[in-house]
Amino acid sequence: MAKNTSENGKKLAILTSGGDSSGMNACIRTAVRSAMNKGYEVYGVRHGYVGLMNDDIFQMQYSSVSNCVHTGGTILRTGRTDEFKKISVQKEAAKNLTKRGVNNLIVIGGDGSFRGIEDLHQNTPLNVIGVPGTIDNDMGYTDYTIGFDTACNTVLDAMLKLRDTITSHDRIMILEVMGRHCGDIALKTAVAGGAEYVIVPEAPADVDAIAASVKKGFDKGKTSTIIVLAEGRNDLKDELREKVKQATGRTVNHVALSYIQRGGTPSMFDRVLASRMASRAVELIECGQSGRVVGVRGSDIIDMNVIEALACEKKFDDRLYALATSISK
Amino acid sequence: MAKNTSENGKKLAILTSGGDSSGMNACIRTAVRSAMNKGYEVYGVRHGYVGLMNDDIFQMQYSSVSNCVHTGGTILRTGRTDEFKKISVQKEAAKNLTKRGVNNLIVIGGDGSFRGIEDLHQNTPLNVIGVPGTIDNDMGYTDYTIGFDTACNTVLDAMLKLRDTITSHDRIMILEVMGRHCGDIALKTAVAGGAEYVIVPEAPADVDAIAASVKKGFDKGKTSTIIVLAEGRNDLKDELREKVKQATGRTVNHVALSYIQRGGTPSMFDRVLASRMASRAVELIECGQSGRVVGVRGSDIIDMNVIEALACEKKFDDRLYALATSISK
Amino acid sequence: MAKNTSENGKKLAILTSGGDSSGMNACIRTAVRSAMNKGYEVYGVRHGYVGLMNDDIFQMQYSSVSNCVHTGGTILRTGRTDEFKKISVQKEAAKNLTKRGVNNLIVIGGDGSFRGIEDLHQNTPLNVIGVPGTIDNDMGYTDYTIGFDTACNTVLDAMLKLRDTITSHDRIMILEVMGRHCGDIALKTAVAGGAEYVIVPEAPADVDAIAASVKKGFDKGKTSTIIVLAEGRNDLKDELREKVKQATGRTVNHVALSYIQRGGTPSMFDRVLASRMASRAVELIECGQSGRVVGVRGSDIIDMNVIEALACEKKFDDRLYALATSISK
Amino acid sequence: MAKNTSENGKKLAILTSGGDSSGMNACIRTAVRSAMNKGYEVYGVRHGYVGLMNDDIFQMQYSSVSNCVHTGGTILRTGRTDEFKKISVQKEAAKNLTKRGVNNLIVIGGDGSFRGIEDLHQNTPLNVIGVPGTIDNDMGYTDYTIGFDTACNTVLDAMLKLRDTITSHDRIMILEVMGRHCGDIALKTAVAGGAEYVIVPEAPADVDAIAASVKKGFDKGKTSTIIVLAEGRNDLKDELREKVKQATGRTVNHVALSYIQRGGTPSMFDRVLASRMASRAVELIECGQSGRVVGVRGSDIIDMNVIEALACEKKFDDRLYALATSISK
Repeated sequence: MAKNTSENGKKLAILTSGGDSSGMNACIRTAVRSAMNKGYEVYGVRHGYVGLMNDDIFQMQYSSVSNCVHTGGTILRTGRTDEFKKISVQKEAAKNLTKRGVNNLIVIGGDGSFRGIEDLHQNTPLNVIGVPGTIDNDMGYTDYTIGFDTACNTVLDAMLKLRDTITSHDRIMILEVMGRHCGDIALKTAVAGGAEYVIVPEAPADVDAIAASVKKGFDKGKTSTIIVLAEGRNDLKDELREKVKQATGRTVNHVALSYIQRGGTPSMFDRVLASRMASRAVELIECGQSGRVVGVRGSDIIDMNVIEALACEKKFDDRLYALATSISK
Repeated sequence: MAKNTSENGKKLAILTSGGDSSGMNACIRTAVRSAMNKGYEVYGVRHGYVGLMNDDIFQMQYSSVSNCVHTGGTILRTGRTDEFKKISVQKEAAKNLTKRGVNNLIVIGGDGSFRGIEDLHQNTPLNVIGVPGTIDNDMGYTDYTIGFDTACNTVLDAMLKLRDTITSHDRIMILEVMGRHCGDIALKTAVAGGAEYVIVPEAPADVDAIAASVKKGFDKGKTSTIIVLAEGRNDLKDELREKVKQATGRTVNHVALSYIQRGGTPSMFDRVLASRMASRAVELIECGQSGRVVGVRGSDIIDMNVIEALACEKKFDDRLYALATSISK
Repeated sequence: MAKNTSENGKKLAILTSGGDSSGMNACIRTAVRSAMNKGYEVYGVRHGYVGLMNDDIFQMQYSSVSNCVHTGGTILRTGRTDEFKKISVQKEAAKNLTKRGVNNLIVIGGDGSFRGIEDLHQNTPLNVIGVPGTIDNDMGYTDYTIGFDTACNTVLDAMLKLRDTITSHDRIMILEVMGRHCGDIALKTAVAGGAEYVIVPEAPADVDAIAASVKKGFDKGKTSTIIVLAEGRNDLKDELREKVKQATGRTVNHVALSYIQRGGTPSMFDRVLASRMASRAVELIECGQSGRVVGVRGSDIIDMNVIEALACEKKFDDRLYALATSISK
Repeated sequence: MAKNTSENGKKLAILTSGGDSSGMNACIRTAVRSAMNKGYEVYGVRHGYVGLMNDDIFQMQYSSVSNCVHTGGTILRTGRTDEFKKISVQKEAAKNLTKRGVNNLIVIGGDGSFRGIEDLHQNTPLNVIGVPGTIDNDMGYTDYTIGFDTACNTVLDAMLKLRDTITSHDRIMILEVMGRHCGDIALKTAVAGGAEYVIVPEAPADVDAIAASVKKGFDKGKTSTIIVLAEGRNDLKDELREKVKQATGRTVNHVALSYIQRGGTPSMFDRVLASRMASRAVELIECGQSGRVVGVRGSDIIDMNVIEALACEKKFDDRLYALATSISK
């Protein structure tokens, strides 16, 4: 798998790609400093693959990552582009590193960004290693992605505030959370927040049954109800709102947390996870590996082939889902 | 102004009405305990004027308000109704208090709720005192309403999170905040959050000029821009989004904080304000006053006639607005 | 291992024992509701084993655990007593459950509390299951205890505030955190907070070397330094303070976070962990198990014999410690 | 009072002095940008008067204050020195500004720092204006100092966490807060936090009466008690702890929040206050004023002679103190 060892030029570049997530900076920080401790010159690429194409690259120092471990977003900034799918573009972009003698690249991002890792690995001389950074937790090969834990805590904070209002007004709230095709944010925040219902892409949703159950809850004395709706099922939003309103005769509010879930000071969990993953990524670079991505399984940091990683099906926690739906009615 | 002294039956009821706001519970707590310390029996009315109509009334104890000083929402819950505009309804509702020997009522709420104070004062035997509770800060007779400070801090917290994402992506964010016809939340959070632009109902907005200015900012090196949009001007949302997008060629996101601004642990400012106002309200009851509302001007707790209070024009802080628009570009 | 099945009287009691930790209420909530869903009558024991001795026991309802999932501390309250080490006391205490027909007990607490589990299992007819609740994360058989994640996040929040002051004043801060004989809180918060040094019971500390290194850091331009000191090595506090002060000529502040680390709204991680563990505990009860404790290894909820669990040596994360000490100087 | 107008060289320097407080950066930001908008060159002095003496001075740009409005501490850093009391030192220090053509200085700090303002005003050619920055709120001429509101909110956050633990354990907590000779932090957080007792320097404290009252409270069913102790009366700490312990037979914990109260993201109130004060300070400079300090009274930003300001006696809010002691037992 190794294409060239790092002996012939200890230089390493780092970029973040796709949606930002909290903890990316902790990851960058550890990667930069671990690599420098091992004798690497380290380069930052701004705006993800866009900056790689545009030669927006700068040398980083130990102090470049001071005072960022606690910050959200990404100090390297990020970007999205379809151009990078072209092999010719990849080859030209890689030259912006190789012309500096840089043969190694760490990419922090989600599954879209990971496809670029395989492309660069196949089509260019670069050794490329990936680290999973996205709040969605939608990557099957790793238990957690960087930013997920922080996003969930942000959702819980919002849920607590919303509960004040809906309890005061005897209302129902549909709280829409992120996660694209993955229901993890919805499921974990529903369990942790004591939400009465949760609708995720991974399980069937019976809107009529929910509406009837919400009514029953109010009949039995409930003074508020929260329905957590995963982004991946927001096609149900209007139907849900209408049917619950009809069943209960109560006001049904809808709040989409939107981008508020993305940023903010990362949690301990995300910062430590990010640091551990970054450390492994640098070790892989040091061993001359390429086309591999770092993950966490249980308490172990793992790494695997990026193609295999992308092929891993994301498992849904059916037991937790069953628990969620059984204890909050 | 006094209709009867409290000598003939030291009994007092409390209700919260309209939108909930953080600090209402601190207000209820101080009112209940101050009144009990002065020898009153205290009653809670649930769901505002709705509960007054429906006889949803219970006696409160010292311990009824334990562990609520730090909570958002209202433990008495709240309600809205148009029925209460009818004099006959008011008279019947008042009987639910007078039949218990309760001649005094403290109402915590916004301007809609304050009209009910005047109605009850005019049309029933009740002595009624008002305390301003609403996040909107839209009442001209008082510098602050209970809940405004907390709501602003919540907006700032969200703005900080959003800044992470838009800086990472070089984006523009239109952040829509509450306040109905009042721009106070928008103005203060724009100043405090370092938002580049703020649009309020109290000042003209030139969308074309803003779009051109945002473009200029990015041309000069800005990496993100936040435009705080007061609810009272959300008619401009689509035009603003479109024109800024056209001018800059960048992604323009829109986030409405919605109900997240309402609840949550009240700030020190709101809790102390609420306690001081509640204390004055009970003193006014003790003096046999009615048809008066409590407020704060500068550092002084004041009280005035409810009709006069409702007639006070809300002043907009032009100097702060000028400051906001001059230091963040 | 099973002593009697739950068939002969589906009744279950719950208690919390030892130091409180955030997430205990989420655990109680899921245990109560899961058990009731399985047909159990559920009883709460107040003040831990003290309440078991004093017959401070009450029946719980579904609503007994409403609105507590987001709260710190324990709604069952907790206690400590040495009396409970006596077999005669254990036997008498158990009768307070058996006289109600309750043969099952879930104990949430730390290692001191777990010894009571084995005692009750051996010396009384009760089926007893344990769940690990302590911020210290000092139990070798489980990767995480309930409350640890929240405590770490609280420490990080404090560290961020302290960094403002010491950076403004070019100072050094010794930040003392909890954990008794376990350095996990210190280690993880040091990594996550970017603390320059961390001293834990599990690794040797060279105070002279630290003092010299801190001086070197300031010489090279650092404007602040944080040394995280685990409770288990606070014997070094005075020596450390004195030597760093002498080496650098700067003010060295010491802050012990103390009880602030204990309470507060639990994190998502702790709430979900607590719910999953509670669910398993009820399943074990349902299977007639006794003398077993629930834990988490990797992403799996596990259970094992309490004696074996107490005998597991707590492993220290040497790799993370090495990382911590290599990237923050 | 004016010594020279700003016409002969629109240059302005800014420094922060004494203990840092949250909101200082919002103040610096508005001062820098307001002044630049008026045509000033702006200089930052690092480490307060120490930097003035040591010529640690640099020109600031519009972007020097980007991304700091939400941060605690001071980006200009701060310092303390007794040297500056010497007139000869003041004269030499002032030359470090005048040699750059800078005749104007804004000083942000507490009362110690304000004495330097008068000194510089009297003994050097500089026009000097002060802005009150300290968490202690101990300056009689202004209702609020920058940082006080944030500090109080931090104390409340800690109090909430502590309440979880002491309620779980049926304990008493002595919570020591900052404020030096001023009891404002203690008083306001006691009212807002629902603390049962508060001891401040401005009112007599009867430790025996408190101990007896705490006992009575537990006898009546209280499960926890918080006594807020102002730093200015921490001479009572041991006696208080001992007597309460004897009276109740319960554990009495003591927590000093210490430096945790100082830093952190400033509140809306502090940021807006800081901005408004900074704006006034620049206006005063623009008018050629000197030896004056900015404050807030009620809702008005005021300015007055620094000598008169320092002579204003700090008023204690007796009514709020009476309220605090009457509603929480």
